[in-house]
Amino acid sequence: MSIPVAVLGPTGYTGLELIEWLLRHPSMRVAYLGTAREKQPRIDEEFPRLAGRLDAASVQCRPIDADAIRAAGVRLAFLCLPHEAAMRHAGPLLARGIKVVDLSAAYRVRNAKVYEGAYGHAHTDAANLTHAVYGLTELNREAVRGATLVANPGCYPTAAALALVPLIRRGIVDASSVIVSAASGASGAGREAKPHLTIVEAGDNFSAYGIGVHRHQPEIEQSLAAFGGEGVEKAAGAEHPPAARIGGTSGPGLLFVPHLLPVERGILETIYAVPRVAYRTPDLLNELRDFYDGERFVSVRDEAPTLRDVQHTNVCHINVRAVGERIVLVAAIDNLVKGASGQAIQNANVMLGLDEAAGLA
Amino acid sequence: MSIPVAVLGPTGYTGLELIEWLLRHPSMRVAYLGTAREKQPRIDEEFPRLAGRLDAASVQCRPIDADAIRAAGVRLAFLCLPHEAAMRHAGPLLARGIKVVDLSAAYRVRNAKVYEGAYGHAHTDAANLTHAVYGLTELNREAVRGATLVANPGCYPTAAALALVPLIRRGIVDASSVIVSAASGASGAGREAKPHLTIVEAGDNFSAYGIGVHRHQPEIEQSLAAFGGEGVEKAAGAEHPPAARIGGTSGPGLLFVPHLLPVERGILETIYAVPRVAYRTPDLLNELRDFYDGERFVSVRDEAPTLRDVQHTNVCHINVRAVGERIVLVAAIDNLVKGASGQAIQNANVMLGLDEAAGLA
Amino acid sequence: MSIPVAVLGPTGYTGLELIEWLLRHPSMRVAYLGTAREKQPRIDEEFPRLAGRLDAASVQCRPIDADAIRAAGVRLAFLCLPHEAAMRHAGPLLARGIKVVDLSAAYRVRNAKVYEGAYGHAHTDAANLTHAVYGLTELNREAVRGATLVANPGCYPTAAALALVPLIRRGIVDASSVIVSAASGASGAGREAKPHLTIVEAGDNFSAYGIGVHRHQPEIEQSLAAFGGEGVEKAAGAEHPPAARIGGTSGPGLLFVPHLLPVERGILETIYAVPRVAYRTPDLLNELRDFYDGERFVSVRDEAPTLRDVQHTNVCHINVRAVGERIVLVAAIDNLVKGASGQAIQNANVMLGLDEAAGLA
Amino acid sequence: MSIPVAVLGPTGYTGLELIEWLLRHPSMRVAYLGTAREKQPRIDEEFPRLAGRLDAASVQCRPIDADAIRAAGVRLAFLCLPHEAAMRHAGPLLARGIKVVDLSAAYRVRNAKVYEGAYGHAHTDAANLTHAVYGLTELNREAVRGATLVANPGCYPTAAALALVPLIRRGIVDASSVIVSAASGASGAGREAKPHLTIVEAGDNFSAYGIGVHRHQPEIEQSLAAFGGEGVEKAAGAEHPPAARIGGTSGPGLLFVPHLLPVERGILETIYAVPRVAYRTPDLLNELRDFYDGERFVSVRDEAPTLRDVQHTNVCHINVRAVGERIVLVAAIDNLVKGASGQAIQNANVMLGLDEAAGLA
Repeated sequence: MSIPVAVLGPTGYTGLELIEWLLRHPSMRVAYLGTAREKQPRIDEEFPRLAGRLDAASVQCRPIDADAIRAAGVRLAFLCLPHEAAMRHAGPLLARGIKVVDLSAAYRVRNAKVYEGAYGHAHTDAANLTHAVYGLTELNREAVRGATLVANPGCYPTAAALALVPLIRRGIVDASSVIVSAASGASGAGREAKPHLTIVEAGDNFSAYGIGVHRHQPEIEQSLAAFGGEGVEKAAGAEHPPAARIGGTSGPGLLFVPHLLPVERGILETIYAVPRVAYRTPDLLNELRDFYDGERFVSVRDEAPTLRDVQHTNVCHINVRAVGERIVLVAAIDNLVKGASGQAIQNANVMLGLDEAAGLA
Repeated sequence: MSIPVAVLGPTGYTGLELIEWLLRHPSMRVAYLGTAREKQPRIDEEFPRLAGRLDAASVQCRPIDADAIRAAGVRLAFLCLPHEAAMRHAGPLLARGIKVVDLSAAYRVRNAKVYEGAYGHAHTDAANLTHAVYGLTELNREAVRGATLVANPGCYPTAAALALVPLIRRGIVDASSVIVSAASGASGAGREAKPHLTIVEAGDNFSAYGIGVHRHQPEIEQSLAAFGGEGVEKAAGAEHPPAARIGGTSGPGLLFVPHLLPVERGILETIYAVPRVAYRTPDLLNELRDFYDGERFVSVRDEAPTLRDVQHTNVCHINVRAVGERIVLVAAIDNLVKGASGQAIQNANVMLGLDEAAGLA
Repeated sequence: MSIPVAVLGPTGYTGLELIEWLLRHPSMRVAYLGTAREKQPRIDEEFPRLAGRLDAASVQCRPIDADAIRAAGVRLAFLCLPHEAAMRHAGPLLARGIKVVDLSAAYRVRNAKVYEGAYGHAHTDAANLTHAVYGLTELNREAVRGATLVANPGCYPTAAALALVPLIRRGIVDASSVIVSAASGASGAGREAKPHLTIVEAGDNFSAYGIGVHRHQPEIEQSLAAFGGEGVEKAAGAEHPPAARIGGTSGPGLLFVPHLLPVERGILETIYAVPRVAYRTPDLLNELRDFYDGERFVSVRDEAPTLRDVQHTNVCHINVRAVGERIVLVAAIDNLVKGASGQAIQNANVMLGLDEAAGLA
Repeated sequence: MSIPVAVLGPTGYTGLELIEWLLRHPSMRVAYLGTAREKQPRIDEEFPRLAGRLDAASVQCRPIDADAIRAAGVRLAFLCLPHEAAMRHAGPLLARGIKVVDLSAAYRVRNAKVYEGAYGHAHTDAANLTHAVYGLTELNREAVRGATLVANPGCYPTAAALALVPLIRRGIVDASSVIVSAASGASGAGREAKPHLTIVEAGDNFSAYGIGVHRHQPEIEQSLAAFGGEGVEKAAGAEHPPAARIGGTSGPGLLFVPHLLPVERGILETIYAVPRVAYRTPDLLNELRDFYDGERFVSVRDEAPTLRDVQHTNVCHINVRAVGERIVLVAAIDNLVKGASGQAIQNANVMLGLDEAAGLA
């Protein structure tokens, strides 16, 4: 009695991760693998680690054809496609009554102009952008529940928002004082072979990149504004958050600086902020614990988490402490799970009325 | 309606791995965590990556007390204990009707003298050794089905036996011609901090160890004799395999040489053998495919597998080819899964009458 | 005609690194290896990578005996000892006319009380502390030239001071606005096997530690005060820098947060500051280039450096840029070379009147 | 009074390694960097780790022009070029009296037909092939001394020949019984970004490749024949070794199987052989120690060496032991140093009449 789902764009790392988690899902099954490649591979030839693990009916990739996907009985499609391809394929699927969780950035940023500035190409699906729901499940659950199109959040923004929103919403921290100093495993850069990503160049190495110009910065700003202020669900689910919410006037402005780690997976963000007034560490921990009470995929920790605490899990670990006149947060997720495919399943679970944690143990 | 199981010795790497797979098992649940430590920790303090993932009732470690374990309703116990502790605890559990899967080496080697030579301490539970079943599931399924005590195989021997037994049983290869040149991730060395295992010493490094004297060599020899000859199930399930089966007379003797890889997990074995007569690669592949037809956890591959193909899965990948007058096999498993905790669950599934693949997707 | 030197404490990572660089030095030779261990090893048994590379006379470790060291003709001793041992051994060597470069923290912090707070034990050599010279060569060259006892700087403080001092001295940045978010390879934690440093735990991992309480923070603060203000050489070389210099009043205070990288060696510091007035990136780069004009071991870069750019070299790479109302610096060194043994040789070269770059190519 | 040398093809990993070692050489200096690229880069832009370390005169790459190279006073050129380019450029350099050390495979295999079979393209410089000397320095020193063109050995063959030649020459082992099971860091695969070499794919991974068909196998066979038999220098220096020398009749044939390690540099070869008669480990060690007595770049070890023992050194470490009826050798080198650029300098030292170890500490 499992629900047929499609994975479109299964040949990248988020596609592979999604398939592996879906293999363990008690009430979804992969019914369609769709790729834009001219010659569609068997997915177990593309990824030998899938050998023998999918049934014969679903192992063969097929074209991305909305009619064929519907004919396969698919009720929800995960889009692991490039941003521009996602904008082309979401509409036809939605038109056929198929719900969509989009793992690209196509529908994350509410303001098409901001999107185009960050991503360098036109937004070609304004119609669906207006009703897309930003799928940071813990912060936007009710909107996700009613959505047909969910924009699955970026990996860096997921950890940043989960760590900061409670403190911003309670008025403890102003976003304009914040520095998100983040580090990610190399799977976040995708599967294409690039000179700086070989094991000789990236192994034993560590580097900052996109300093102050990374395209996840607008998404982080949007989340802090939308979920850190009032009328959150409305703001994020339906219209562009007012720019005036971002930053306020107390600090030199939010800054996001990512770094590349010599590991496959995992994001650790060390976040520096200046509180409006002095706080003690136990009070800060309590604020976070109150905020995330009952959440199964957020763990507020007394100690700073490490990457290893979260790799291959859908859980975000957060620690906070007061240090002198500053606050330091450390948040960790697996960029391929809570930062991508795991959260996509979490959103799909909510959209389909399943247990939110189904298949995510 | 899930079956309560115990994990005894949950604070090592096989214990952690077992717990994580059990969290996803549809019909087993962790009902008891037992440790020999004087001060029993919460398992999520020992391993922060478990935070929030076990229910409140099972998160606290307790003493290893057979009566308490029985009182918790446990039907099967996984022993992730040191060899000598396993020999002490298996009996009392069995006496209370609790089935046992032992992940230590205590019951793997049929001949107590051989065991004592390899492990350097006395075997103290001869009574249970006589009926223990060697749990290389694919090669000994029927014996496992009826067993109350299963000796879960060693990591290196699992891959070596799965690769070699088909060729030995068909008379293609004689064990005395075989060299098993193997490499393992460092989790195989356990969780204790040792000077040669720090990231500075073991990272970016590679080394051979235990050349010709590793204690897995007798276990490999036993498997090739027991499963490669006639009367396999009987030999392994009930009595010591006749030494005369091992090696024959055609080669200089089986040699096992392990190496330490700078990775967390995974075993790759490159196995060199000399066939009795010349074979072609396609025929060798067919022999393996015939042998493992229908097996869900063995994948015979046209290409040599890599560690990445098997990490975090319960599948053994095997490739074989003829090279001049030699045969080269490459076999890969995850030492913590098919080489330990995954195969333990596979055996438990068989012992409990469940689907053999349950919880192992 | 090479100068005999001693390495005391050669069995740690800075000792090994020092020996390897000295093997290539055109005018120093290792004449004495002294260890506090009861049973003194041959150094090539301790570190097999030295096999055959030292001459027979110097390969054997001997006790740390100032008279024997003097009898061996040693003119300068490198102390790679624990802090407390360094305080015991520096005096007797100096008393015999042997110059000392101390790689421990014993003589780095001018104020014994601050030292004791950071390191948790008493300072037992106040006499020599008063005249010890802080050996950040580029910033304190003239004082080093005349010194008999040089305190070789800590690894993190070396990179932080080289990056920040030019901007602080020119009045561009106030130390109180600074966050030093740093990451180091595991060799910085020393050679002892600790549970969190095994390859299984530290490999593929990344974590923050000592958040706001790391003992390098006072050393960084001292450097920025001493070298960032007026009367630099005097302040650092002769007396305690006035505390009032540190921080000023414009920011919430200097914060240092180190992280542990899954690599052997290298430090990358991403430094966030708020300038007093707005600056353009090219102007900031020019400030740094002016400041380090002619320096052979500082390279000011248009692009952010990576660890790989500096590993196994004595060079510090620095990049700076303006980002909105903030400044971001990225500085990289090899913690074992410019952060320890390479800078020790650089200081020794200056103290002995040799070419400062001798043996450091 | 240093000798001007050229590095042609400096933008690959062997080129970079060569430049770094030459920076420390007391009597050679880089006078010419020549590249086939249309737009010649500054070498410190290509490799930022060279920033500030070369003098202004030599930092700029120039075209590969034999006249210009001669005009720069170059007495010896290192060729780090693709095989086919090496065949084009060696002749014109030799014709101008410039000695050549070729790091490609162009002149390694004496028999052009064997070369063409292994490398898949024609050999276009038969004239120089006839007098090229195979530069495995320890085994062919006198021939190297008189050579104008030295073929620098391959990385795998260097370690294999150094380990095996003593045992073959003494008649202990027959090459036909030998299996060379080798593992290399990824720098051996060159600098080009390929899908299987990204950190995500190659990191935490291990795999066999080129099983039985790797092009280093003929080179290994040639070395064992040429240096393992009689008339070694003559055989290798002047004519093709008689095929009948290889293998003999006692074993199934030499087999070479390389593996890819998740590290930057280093080769470890575990070599399995069957001795003609039984030997004891101490006798085998003595044979090797006798053979390499006085050699500065071979260290015969009682224990099996690790990669870390040799990385960043020009030394080959070898261990040997008898195991039952087999012999196991473990040999380790740094593929970029003794396996390429270090041995190239060692050969150049011999060719130029310098101390063989100059610049290689």
